[in-house]
Amino acid sequence: MSNARITLVNPNSLVKVTEAIARATAPFQGLPLEFRFLTSAGGPAGIQTQAEADASIAPMAQLFRQEAAATDAFIVACFSDPGLHGLRDLVAVPVLGIGECSVLTAMSMATRIGVIAIASAAVARHLRYFRAMGVADRICGELALDMKVSDLADPERAFERMTAVGRTLRDDHGADVLIMGCAGMADLRDRLEEACGLPVVEPTQAAVAMAAGRLFSRA
Amino acid sequence: MSNARITLVNPNSLVKVTEAIARATAPFQGLPLEFRFLTSAGGPAGIQTQAEADASIAPMAQLFRQEAAATDAFIVACFSDPGLHGLRDLVAVPVLGIGECSVLTAMSMATRIGVIAIASAAVARHLRYFRAMGVADRICGELALDMKVSDLADPERAFERMTAVGRTLRDDHGADVLIMGCAGMADLRDRLEEACGLPVVEPTQAAVAMAAGRLFSRA
Amino acid sequence: MSNARITLVNPNSLVKVTEAIARATAPFQGLPLEFRFLTSAGGPAGIQTQAEADASIAPMAQLFRQEAAATDAFIVACFSDPGLHGLRDLVAVPVLGIGECSVLTAMSMATRIGVIAIASAAVARHLRYFRAMGVADRICGELALDMKVSDLADPERAFERMTAVGRTLRDDHGADVLIMGCAGMADLRDRLEEACGLPVVEPTQAAVAMAAGRLFSRA
Amino acid sequence: MSNARITLVNPNSLVKVTEAIARATAPFQGLPLEFRFLTSAGGPAGIQTQAEADASIAPMAQLFRQEAAATDAFIVACFSDPGLHGLRDLVAVPVLGIGECSVLTAMSMATRIGVIAIASAAVARHLRYFRAMGVADRICGELALDMKVSDLADPERAFERMTAVGRTLRDDHGADVLIMGCAGMADLRDRLEEACGLPVVEPTQAAVAMAAGRLFSRA
Amino acid sequence: MSNARITLVNPNSLVKVTEAIARATAPFQGLPLEFRFLTSAGGPAGIQTQAEADASIAPMAQLFRQEAAATDAFIVACFSDPGLHGLRDLVAVPVLGIGECSVLTAMSMATRIGVIAIASAAVARHLRYFRAMGVADRICGELALDMKVSDLADPERAFERMTAVGRTLRDDHGADVLIMGCAGMADLRDRLEEACGLPVVEPTQAAVAMAAGRLFSRA
Amino acid sequence: MSNARITLVNPNSLVKVTEAIARATAPFQGLPLEFRFLTSAGGPAGIQTQAEADASIAPMAQLFRQEAAATDAFIVACFSDPGLHGLRDLVAVPVLGIGECSVLTAMSMATRIGVIAIASAAVARHLRYFRAMGVADRICGELALDMKVSDLADPERAFERMTAVGRTLRDDHGADVLIMGCAGMADLRDRLEEACGLPVVEPTQAAVAMAAGRLFSRA
Repeated sequence: MSNARITLVNPNSLVKVTEAIARATAPFQGLPLEFRFLTSAGGPAGIQTQAEADASIAPMAQLFRQEAAATDAFIVACFSDPGLHGLRDLVAVPVLGIGECSVLTAMSMATRIGVIAIASAAVARHLRYFRAMGVADRICGELALDMKVSDLADPERAFERMTAVGRTLRDDHGADVLIMGCAGMADLRDRLEEACGLPVVEPTQAAVAMAAGRLFSRA
Repeated sequence: MSNARITLVNPNSLVKVTEAIARATAPFQGLPLEFRFLTSAGGPAGIQTQAEADASIAPMAQLFRQEAAATDAFIVACFSDPGLHGLRDLVAVPVLGIGECSVLTAMSMATRIGVIAIASAAVARHLRYFRAMGVADRICGELALDMKVSDLADPERAFERMTAVGRTLRDDHGADVLIMGCAGMADLRDRLEEACGLPVVEPTQAAVAMAAGRLFSRA
Repeated sequence: MSNARITLVNPNSLVKVTEAIARATAPFQGLPLEFRFLTSAGGPAGIQTQAEADASIAPMAQLFRQEAAATDAFIVACFSDPGLHGLRDLVAVPVLGIGECSVLTAMSMATRIGVIAIASAAVARHLRYFRAMGVADRICGELALDMKVSDLADPERAFERMTAVGRTLRDDHGADVLIMGCAGMADLRDRLEEACGLPVVEPTQAAVAMAAGRLFSRA
Repeated sequence: MSNARITLVNPNSLVKVTEAIARATAPFQGLPLEFRFLTSAGGPAGIQTQAEADASIAPMAQLFRQEAAATDAFIVACFSDPGLHGLRDLVAVPVLGIGECSVLTAMSMATRIGVIAIASAAVARHLRYFRAMGVADRICGELALDMKVSDLADPERAFERMTAVGRTLRDDHGADVLIMGCAGMADLRDRLEEACGLPVVEPTQAAVAMAAGRLFSRA
Repeated sequence: MSNARITLVNPNSLVKVTEAIARATAPFQGLPLEFRFLTSAGGPAGIQTQAEADASIAPMAQLFRQEAAATDAFIVACFSDPGLHGLRDLVAVPVLGIGECSVLTAMSMATRIGVIAIASAAVARHLRYFRAMGVADRICGELALDMKVSDLADPERAFERMTAVGRTLRDDHGADVLIMGCAGMADLRDRLEEACGLPVVEPTQAAVAMAAGRLFSRA
Repeated sequence: MSNARITLVNPNSLVKVTEAIARATAPFQGLPLEFRFLTSAGGPAGIQTQAEADASIAPMAQLFRQEAAATDAFIVACFSDPGLHGLRDLVAVPVLGIGECSVLTAMSMATRIGVIAIASAAVARHLRYFRAMGVADRICGELALDMKVSDLADPERAFERMTAVGRTLRDDHGADVLIMGCAGMADLRDRLEEACGLPVVEPTQAAVAMAAGRLFSRA
């Protein structure tokens, strides 16, 4: 079995986020997989609004065209999956989105899915997306951390707030599985699971798992 | 009442389509409205695939930013409403989409909506959009003309095929109102209504009507 | 363009409500529209229960038949749209309902719609109606003012309570647009928008806008 | 156990239909039930359109008020259940609708429900009703007999057509249970079951069964 | 009219529960019905988890095969209706489930259904079931008593807790009808109705009512 | 990375089916996975009806308890996923179902999913399951091969029929991805893809891919 090549594209221009995405793939080391992590230099500095999500598509499309020959699957590494369906039109290899894959993975684990968003600006956009996917009935709630950026940078504060939100989703909304609605926070997954007593889906890992599975099943 | 300014943006680069869009607004002449019709020169030459729809967003976003001060409302004049929600993030004035407005208008006319698409490549994209809008249950069917471009250019052939598709939506899918799933075919609306015996919603007119109504109600 | 005639029918017998409905159309003065405001003298004194909504239909049907020749469009001016579909069977001109039009208008403005009802007795009836319309997924919450009639008569108290309910819909239910679930409160719209920081749809204005748009587009 | 009194109201003015409704209750003879069959003399001569359904409500409301003291439960004996929810506001005893009861009964028998309508004018109205009820997903299809009234009067022709429609619902729409979407055709139920090889729900019997069950369970 | 025989099967092995189920049928005494109450000796000692619900099916299937000749209808007397659809494959007579029948009965009484569960472990399972039934939109909330078993045994404590949960469903979730999501608590129904001011559906009685109605209508 | 152990359980007692399931995992050879293939000797000889699906649960539950210590994940290898949620209650390791995984995988590939069932008896059961999963809107059609068993045994006849059904799902129902609604037909996947011009999801492979991905992501 030759190595299957998976290219993860961070649609925003922050290399730090790309690095966090790369770290999320650590558990997959040792498998016949070859990862590439690309930062979409032309993308916005962050994706909070729908406008920013949309603005990230054109630069990504260019990247996809350039890199298509060098990969066996692409992963759009932003929870809003900007441009997912259109990017599938552009390249022949599978294109997966970390938002879609995290929801599908959570659906195989439990009945009621709670989503932890970074910013409340994302919640309506995600809702439209869950509806477009036809899975809105499975989402029992989505709540945002709504922290100041300065506080988000402090991992302990972020973790505390994330735990509080996760517990509210569990206790008030009935969630029996949680999704981290953002790329780049894989480091906190295990602790969050423990703190909330629920399985937690980390989107990048969910997408790598589904991409790898699909490539392997074609081997 | 001073004139309300409505800017219609054709997301593709074909001036001919923009001209057809302009013709669709003829019935609104005489009202205190001032229309501008812009062709998004940086957009794709046509919008059939999701990739083309997505590719049209970035150039439109630029146009919107440039023209925002000169208009009281924007209309995205493509049935797929590319970038609609994101464009709303960019400008303070109302942004309407001809796809959304045509569905909402049809919903005020009858119970079961049939949609006539130009190309079958659009049907899955529209379906995702109707679901995101939360109105998929109201769409009783969408069928594509699926004509060769050369035949589409012949208005009589296009009309014949459109009539055939409209009647199938009426007889086999139960449609009691039809939507023309495309900009630029307003010329055929009255004849199509007569040929099918059903009300027909023309998307550009539906959007102009809703935009004008919204502007007037703020007067 | 000759004037388009729009007849608004207040299904209850209170002339005061009809007058408030008339005031809601003030922004449309100056357009080639001619309004008539009818009070359904045979209707109930108010519409709170489903029985009252139903009781208002027969007298309205008579009015519609009598007035059909004198109008180009009818508007049923009660948020529950009593008899809407049946009235469409009776006359050839368009019949719009302020409930339906306000929901459709709100759908073109934002993703999650909060509805402010006057009385809690209306909430289940509205819910059945939103479901019949196929849009229940877009309504994130409906809450009632539940004020004593004497307090409702005091505009300041009504406004305060409406503001409180609107903010709850925004903060606890995620509403990003509000609908005033009642005719006759147009005077408070602008203040409510400001107090809640959200767009507010006033049903009579939404219906006039859609009716006017539809008539103009046939001009 | 004293007799429970059930009053069936035919919302249209045709005594012949009331008589057919009465015949549908034959299987319940021998139970501690007392039936009354009322014809709503002020109702329309038949209910095909929504306008006719609505026109039947006001006269029925009067009947209900007059007869409330003399009955333990009412049944609205028209498949469209005109005024059902409002009539519940008017009287303290249970009010059941033969449309609602037939759907609920069919739901307890099989997964996919096919509905046989008399006239195609009813199909959109029923669809709105199934959606309001929240059960539209259970209806796999509704098809109309669409016979001339003169042919409907011939029971053999009606039966033949009904059988053809029932088989289409079974074979093309996947129905595994059928509902006769009309009052007054109970005589044909057993034959239709045999001809289609599917269970058939007769609405009046379904409503009487549910009404009786509810009254007995309070005994 | 000869007696119709209805066999109620308690899928768990607790004779005490079977006895409570039997008591629930008291109001139906005096009708031409003959009841049998069977305890599925091979079933689990109680049904809280999905695993326990599933484990109850095989022993019930055996019982059903043995008893089919001696009954005119079966009732699965556990709110989760374990094996309902499969048991219908095994015997020719009607098989009803108390969960399904209680929901269908509540749907004929009011718009928004609140469900009182015994244990929170059941809520996700019920949700899957309501979705499979296609009625999830009618359930406005389900809350669990979550009492210690020792406290459940004390009827007064159980009633107090049930009342508190019922009122929360009414006030915070908008319930206008309640279902007791469990067999064997019929004794408390009347008091619960009074304490909550809402109609309360007791599942065993709902199922007996529907079974009896169905058998009578075939008489 | 030590080998992850995946146990696939064939709920029916046919060793031939287990062998075909084993063959489906061939593409995953070479990965750090260790497969075990168990035949549930106490299960039914095949699973066509809901009763047979249910009858397979109890013997599987025993197998799961016995084998839990020897595996890192279980896969229920029947498209109806009998007992899936209950089996999750019994063991601490992940339990995946090939039905659920095939739907979730197809959802990551295209918008409208067509399902090819073996026997029409399964279609209503699958429909209930898709609804319970909350994904019924994504299934554009399910059609059965409905072949005689003798013909099914002939792979060429089976393939021909499968191709015909797949093309009908594509052309008449709009499917853009197909699922083979059965275990044990992996051998035909590639040919079916080619014959229909659509991606085809083979359920066992979809489940192994998701199970492997989940185990790897925890490595």
